[in-house]
Amino acid sequence: MALTVSRTATGREFKVKDIAQADFGRLEIELAEVEMPGLMACRAEFGPTQPLKGARITGSLHMTIQTAVLIETLTALGAEVRWCSCNIFSTQDAAAAAIARDSAAVFAWKGETLEEYWWCTEKALDWGPGSGPDLIVDDGGDATLLIHEGVKAEEEYERSGKLPNPNETENAEFRIVLSIIKEGLLIDPKRYTRMKDRLVGVSEETTTGVKRLYQMQANGTLLFPAINVNDSVTKSKFDNLYGCRHSLPDGLMRATDVMIAGKIAVVCGYGDVGKGCAAALKAAGARVIVTEIDPICALQALMEGIPVLTLEDMVAEADIFVTTTGNKDIIMVSHMKQMKNNAIVCNIGHFDNEIDMLGLETYPGIKRITIKPQTDRWIFPETNRGIIVLAEGRLMNLGCATGHPSFVMSCSFTNQVIAQLELWKERGSGKYEKKVYVLPKHLDEKVASLHLGKLGAKLTKLTPDQAAYISVPVEGPYKPPHYRY
Amino acid sequence: MALTVSRTATGREFKVKDIAQADFGRLEIELAEVEMPGLMACRAEFGPTQPLKGARITGSLHMTIQTAVLIETLTALGAEVRWCSCNIFSTQDAAAAAIARDSAAVFAWKGETLEEYWWCTEKALDWGPGSGPDLIVDDGGDATLLIHEGVKAEEEYERSGKLPNPNETENAEFRIVLSIIKEGLLIDPKRYTRMKDRLVGVSEETTTGVKRLYQMQANGTLLFPAINVNDSVTKSKFDNLYGCRHSLPDGLMRATDVMIAGKIAVVCGYGDVGKGCAAALKAAGARVIVTEIDPICALQALMEGIPVLTLEDMVAEADIFVTTTGNKDIIMVSHMKQMKNNAIVCNIGHFDNEIDMLGLETYPGIKRITIKPQTDRWIFPETNRGIIVLAEGRLMNLGCATGHPSFVMSCSFTNQVIAQLELWKERGSGKYEKKVYVLPKHLDEKVASLHLGKLGAKLTKLTPDQAAYISVPVEGPYKPPHYRY
Amino acid sequence: MALTVSRTATGREFKVKDIAQADFGRLEIELAEVEMPGLMACRAEFGPTQPLKGARITGSLHMTIQTAVLIETLTALGAEVRWCSCNIFSTQDAAAAAIARDSAAVFAWKGETLEEYWWCTEKALDWGPGSGPDLIVDDGGDATLLIHEGVKAEEEYERSGKLPNPNETENAEFRIVLSIIKEGLLIDPKRYTRMKDRLVGVSEETTTGVKRLYQMQANGTLLFPAINVNDSVTKSKFDNLYGCRHSLPDGLMRATDVMIAGKIAVVCGYGDVGKGCAAALKAAGARVIVTEIDPICALQALMEGIPVLTLEDMVAEADIFVTTTGNKDIIMVSHMKQMKNNAIVCNIGHFDNEIDMLGLETYPGIKRITIKPQTDRWIFPETNRGIIVLAEGRLMNLGCATGHPSFVMSCSFTNQVIAQLELWKERGSGKYEKKVYVLPKHLDEKVASLHLGKLGAKLTKLTPDQAAYISVPVEGPYKPPHYRY
Amino acid sequence: MALTVSRTATGREFKVKDIAQADFGRLEIELAEVEMPGLMACRAEFGPTQPLKGARITGSLHMTIQTAVLIETLTALGAEVRWCSCNIFSTQDAAAAAIARDSAAVFAWKGETLEEYWWCTEKALDWGPGSGPDLIVDDGGDATLLIHEGVKAEEEYERSGKLPNPNETENAEFRIVLSIIKEGLLIDPKRYTRMKDRLVGVSEETTTGVKRLYQMQANGTLLFPAINVNDSVTKSKFDNLYGCRHSLPDGLMRATDVMIAGKIAVVCGYGDVGKGCAAALKAAGARVIVTEIDPICALQALMEGIPVLTLEDMVAEADIFVTTTGNKDIIMVSHMKQMKNNAIVCNIGHFDNEIDMLGLETYPGIKRITIKPQTDRWIFPETNRGIIVLAEGRLMNLGCATGHPSFVMSCSFTNQVIAQLELWKERGSGKYEKKVYVLPKHLDEKVASLHLGKLGAKLTKLTPDQAAYISVPVEGPYKPPHYRY
Repeated sequence: MALTVSRTATGREFKVKDIAQADFGRLEIELAEVEMPGLMACRAEFGPTQPLKGARITGSLHMTIQTAVLIETLTALGAEVRWCSCNIFSTQDAAAAAIARDSAAVFAWKGETLEEYWWCTEKALDWGPGSGPDLIVDDGGDATLLIHEGVKAEEEYERSGKLPNPNETENAEFRIVLSIIKEGLLIDPKRYTRMKDRLVGVSEETTTGVKRLYQMQANGTLLFPAINVNDSVTKSKFDNLYGCRHSLPDGLMRATDVMIAGKIAVVCGYGDVGKGCAAALKAAGARVIVTEIDPICALQALMEGIPVLTLEDMVAEADIFVTTTGNKDIIMVSHMKQMKNNAIVCNIGHFDNEIDMLGLETYPGIKRITIKPQTDRWIFPETNRGIIVLAEGRLMNLGCATGHPSFVMSCSFTNQVIAQLELWKERGSGKYEKKVYVLPKHLDEKVASLHLGKLGAKLTKLTPDQAAYISVPVEGPYKPPHYRY
Repeated sequence: MALTVSRTATGREFKVKDIAQADFGRLEIELAEVEMPGLMACRAEFGPTQPLKGARITGSLHMTIQTAVLIETLTALGAEVRWCSCNIFSTQDAAAAAIARDSAAVFAWKGETLEEYWWCTEKALDWGPGSGPDLIVDDGGDATLLIHEGVKAEEEYERSGKLPNPNETENAEFRIVLSIIKEGLLIDPKRYTRMKDRLVGVSEETTTGVKRLYQMQANGTLLFPAINVNDSVTKSKFDNLYGCRHSLPDGLMRATDVMIAGKIAVVCGYGDVGKGCAAALKAAGARVIVTEIDPICALQALMEGIPVLTLEDMVAEADIFVTTTGNKDIIMVSHMKQMKNNAIVCNIGHFDNEIDMLGLETYPGIKRITIKPQTDRWIFPETNRGIIVLAEGRLMNLGCATGHPSFVMSCSFTNQVIAQLELWKERGSGKYEKKVYVLPKHLDEKVASLHLGKLGAKLTKLTPDQAAYISVPVEGPYKPPHYRY
Repeated sequence: MALTVSRTATGREFKVKDIAQADFGRLEIELAEVEMPGLMACRAEFGPTQPLKGARITGSLHMTIQTAVLIETLTALGAEVRWCSCNIFSTQDAAAAAIARDSAAVFAWKGETLEEYWWCTEKALDWGPGSGPDLIVDDGGDATLLIHEGVKAEEEYERSGKLPNPNETENAEFRIVLSIIKEGLLIDPKRYTRMKDRLVGVSEETTTGVKRLYQMQANGTLLFPAINVNDSVTKSKFDNLYGCRHSLPDGLMRATDVMIAGKIAVVCGYGDVGKGCAAALKAAGARVIVTEIDPICALQALMEGIPVLTLEDMVAEADIFVTTTGNKDIIMVSHMKQMKNNAIVCNIGHFDNEIDMLGLETYPGIKRITIKPQTDRWIFPETNRGIIVLAEGRLMNLGCATGHPSFVMSCSFTNQVIAQLELWKERGSGKYEKKVYVLPKHLDEKVASLHLGKLGAKLTKLTPDQAAYISVPVEGPYKPPHYRY
Repeated sequence: MALTVSRTATGREFKVKDIAQADFGRLEIELAEVEMPGLMACRAEFGPTQPLKGARITGSLHMTIQTAVLIETLTALGAEVRWCSCNIFSTQDAAAAAIARDSAAVFAWKGETLEEYWWCTEKALDWGPGSGPDLIVDDGGDATLLIHEGVKAEEEYERSGKLPNPNETENAEFRIVLSIIKEGLLIDPKRYTRMKDRLVGVSEETTTGVKRLYQMQANGTLLFPAINVNDSVTKSKFDNLYGCRHSLPDGLMRATDVMIAGKIAVVCGYGDVGKGCAAALKAAGARVIVTEIDPICALQALMEGIPVLTLEDMVAEADIFVTTTGNKDIIMVSHMKQMKNNAIVCNIGHFDNEIDMLGLETYPGIKRITIKPQTDRWIFPETNRGIIVLAEGRLMNLGCATGHPSFVMSCSFTNQVIAQLELWKERGSGKYEKKVYVLPKHLDEKVASLHLGKLGAKLTKLTPDQAAYISVPVEGPYKPPHYRY
């Protein structure tokens, strides 16, 4: 693995696929800016006072065109930024090139190996010898994980002199994490400890990363404050739902050109992501079946006319399978071998363990034909039937298409900007402990407000009398915290 | 007003429209039981141990067929029950007759005057001289209100000897409430005080009633524990949403036979009720416009392709207006006079102050033509254009049709039964203070579970390994408390 | 059967349920007029010249509020009218009363026996001794049938002296037809012959009636010209489709209050009526399955995400069954006994032979409980499971609700008016032979045009250059005759 | 323009972008075969008897993966084939490569100039000196046009010695057509005359081409029989409707990644194509407005809840504009300059004259920025606002994405195969005159049948009794010719 870092004329580091794509990336970024009114409003409101001046931000979040607009919003507010992607297939190389050339240190390209992926993550956290970021923008929690595992290893090393042993884990990816930490330890045995000491906090983007944070909070192992951006209404009820409603069919079409109408599609999980996926497939004319563990979500599916069955019930009949659970071991190789010829199997959840890719890869006699990148046909020897797996079981909307569209990402990323502003502003106040926080509702409502004008919407104003009648301030927030939207 | 109470052969009191409708009511109740699996499951699970034995329950909740199944579930669990409706138009007379004959004391008929309405409420709370209910099932909070106002008056009377003065209020309905309390005070100056002392708690059904409870909790004036049933997911995300999606068009069709397709419909408010209404109108082929004060709900409407404008923008163009806000003064007479000829104006929210009925009734020269009960055409003298107002501005789905269908009410009412069981079981334990509580998530999930079998759904079971991975028990609850569904 | 004819003050005959309902009917008619812009435009355009002056029109078409507006449009254009309903349950008594009092001779009430039904039909054709109508407005073809059967019998009688023998047929309804003809023959052996000689033509409303006409045309037995109104685009693609999308759920809700969401519904037939029914059920949250004989219609269902299976596949699983085929023997008693308890069975097609009512009624040991008129529960003795049959297997949307809404009926009935005008205008020209005709496309487009303003639509105008480019006149018609819309 | 023809090892001619893409093309073709059951069934049914043996077929139809399966079906039935695309942007280069290598002479690549386009067309018609095709598969009618214009010029030349003068026309594209004919005339003055003499017939794919054929039939200038495949139900009601419902959002997403939800979209034309486009946009959460000239189609839009307005009403408000009319001069440069910044303008109709590209290109001071191929931003100098034009105003679903998916194209192309078989079989029988024909309904139904199995559908069988009742054969056809589906 010969990974070398390049530098711009001004000396900023980067490693991208092709810096020559920067012009194309810039054109796409300019289009996206028009679709991201929340971020542009942040630039207008906060740019003049440079509230992020002095803040070093590391981001680990899909290096797409939309993320480019986020990064340049952070820099417009005064921050210095280093960035990596949080998925090996999700980088849009032109976006990476434009940002690398113009705005921030970027380490990301489409189609990284896992070794390369973690090298990029480490680079994004590397602010020079003995130094680290003040703030983290995380998606899935890999940057946070690396620091937490690094600190754990450094503490163990200090205590017992023991280095982490990559061979102790069966998980191939975690083995790489431990190797990186081990190599680092030999050079600087306090690197991650200093990093966590410096860190003001992290804002986390997605369900899966948030779940990890709450686990650490519950275990008392969380090392710095965290803002759970995922559970802003303007994130999880928009990005997860409407983003996936857009990007699931986009990924399916670009990868396979399959006609969705008339097909039977199984959506595993009916949370916000699953709801978006099911809605899109239904709208396109598929017959959708949902699998669920949660009786409430199951009943919601039924009220929308969607049957709730088990994967086993449908495995031999369905044409398209989508996992959206955030859990693991959802579609196993034993399921896949029962599927119809050319059944399409994909995952739109964050991690690649919803589909049993290991089981598939190691199935005796299996044959893999790559139709095109991120579209593989796997043929079972017994039946000679093939199934089509998208994006190697990873985030199919980012691997096979371009992810969520700008407008909905503007909602999500405006929450990120507000969270970063809040963490940085309160860095010395003690307001945030080593816990997980959500943004207050008035900020959530503000994020929504910033997106209404673009769509020509006009809000009704409460009279003081009406506000008093329903016991809310005229200016909001309008709902109690438990309100579900 | 000559209101006389009748008695059954066994001596139980009632006042209904026509006891002879009991047979028809019974047939309808039997149909409904098949559609209410949650309530029937409660009977099967709890009936044998009679956990409500000894409990006196007063209910103030639309006296419909579905409510009849609720009442007979409470009695099947051992309770003794007295009931009134919580809306002057919402009683189904056959249901009232069947319950009065067979199961509980009922004081309710379709088309009560406001005086009659509060007489019924008082009767339902009247368990004999000096006595009151142990538990209340409330919808909108009128039973709770009467007790709170009664106690307030009794305290004032004790303190200062002052009787309540009905003429002091401009609100016609509240004047009646004060009159009733005043009359009672003269007979028994401690009646409501004793009642609140006896009361174990109330379970409240709807958004509007819950809002009142939280206000009293905030003011420190809540006199007994309250369980907020409305905010069970299996209530507010089902009854409010899917119930209204069903019953709004039902009410429109029965009242006006109007073709919804092609029409322009304005839905004021895009909460759960508004979402259900908008979905139904859109599905029927209307062009829907939403008005909102809350930017988040507004953005949700936009993502569903629904414009968000103000009432003023649409008032002269739309054909159908529906209020769903839970607020007051939404459609004023000044709006109504600008509307197209035969525009339909209705309210599906709990109280009748969303539409300015007073303004309409007192408009100089206005002419009212009753097409049929609950369907009136009001003609403005200047323009000779009429508008059609449903159910006199009250709950149109219950006034013009039969309200929500049994299946979704089974979800809501199973929550009610569980709440009543919980309050009664913990009556001596001190678990519940004078505060507002919601049911724990595992009970919410249980309610959903009880409704899946009827629809042929099959849940997926988590493996212990998967449960550990997402940090939930195998048996649930599956979601954190803040999850929005 | 004591059927007596009443007379208005002016001597016009009628037999309705209750003439006192005329005021209520008039109010409903006035509301409907606002929703029927096509008919009102006909009154405005043609009223002044009285083009139907002198024409005697007999109508056999559901005596509803909408039909009342049709009748009064015909009289406004100068015609004299006698009317009966074409279904025993479809009359709205208030509409019948208002028309009887104000405008035309009506013989119709909700809930006729079959004997009464044919008595009414005969009365509507009876313009005094030796006389008959000039024109017929038919729906289902019963008026046309009676004349054809009458002429056949008179010819046989003239030839052989043989009277029709009602006992020769096994069909109970046809036995009544023959009885009526037989009675008539004994009084006037040339009655129907003179009637057909006078008749200028018939305009037929519905698929089923049209089918009969084409059969007679093919056999050479058609006795007078016929205009097939059903196959105007503005009829079959609107009334059949959008009318049923409205009135199917309306009928289901009024009859059963059942929650449609979550249920499994089988729609037999996916023609225009079936498409409307399936769309409505899907929109309401049901899981819909279609049965079809035609592979093209089947493929259309699949493209909309609707499975196509056989009735046998679904009979034991579904909750709601709707027949829309226009064929016979669709749901047999052998199917019904396999259904789930309280499965709902109904027919929205014209005749009552889609559902095997005879098989049900004669099933050994079957028990029928009438929940309310037009809603019966039939209990099978072996299983004690009941099924709920609506409107005795007849047109459920007219039997259990009020049929299609005014706006869409305005499209259909404007075609009727135009057809009647055309037949009458050309009565002496020989333009129409004893064949079946459809209205020319420019009239079809005109009907649509008359309905756009009410919905606020604005058409784009072709430039002469554009019109030339696509080879159509600037003013239309815009499509070739085979265009399918 | 240096256009050279290559040859395969076996001597077959071709000109494609890159023959090395043949392997990838083959993989895609194999996937498509699984999705095209109608074509595969034709191979199974007709392959053994080689009914197209001896037939030379020229195709002018988008050279996509789906067309590859069509071509290989024709060759599997014995035909020899030469092919070109019918749109400069619609070729999928990998498909062209695979076919060129394996099956037929192909002259097509993505991004032809107009000169190249007509060169390809001419090559596809060139079966060697003095020779031409027996049959044509046409889409839009360009191959047919070239022959008709060629014959016209040859006749003029024979009569008067006058050569066609390309400079006489203002239409840039027609100038190229005349140039090609002129060059040909100088070499062989009877080339197109001999070609039309040989020609057995053409089967035409699309609305636009069919319109041309009917015009020629009306003028008496049609030179050979034509089968109108477009008006098979299984073509126009499937490919046009469901194909566009799939491929419009696909093209929008691939070209712009724009979020469709929340946007205002104007669809010009509400025929089958417009219906598909509007349905897709609505389903994705856009607010759709339709423009129409035809009152019937307009009323259909309204019944689906879609407003009908003029382009002028919406031009300054909408975000997305799609033309589907088959007419010309729909969106003019005067409209485009009023649009919002970054409004998206595209055409899914066959020809590029729906959008005023010439007006745009020649607008004084306009600036064009190519974001990526087929996605251009045009900036107006006065406002500095840009609009985004897709595929240079041509077929956006084929220019920006991959066109319609395989399954629906299988319906269309199975009609093509059946039409080609029919023309060839009847080549000597005189059955087909120089007129335009549609396929009989039983073949249309057969096409549908062949696609049901893949989707797991089961048809219901008529009993003989039922068939007699509705007067159709048990085996179909089931509908009268005028039936609209």
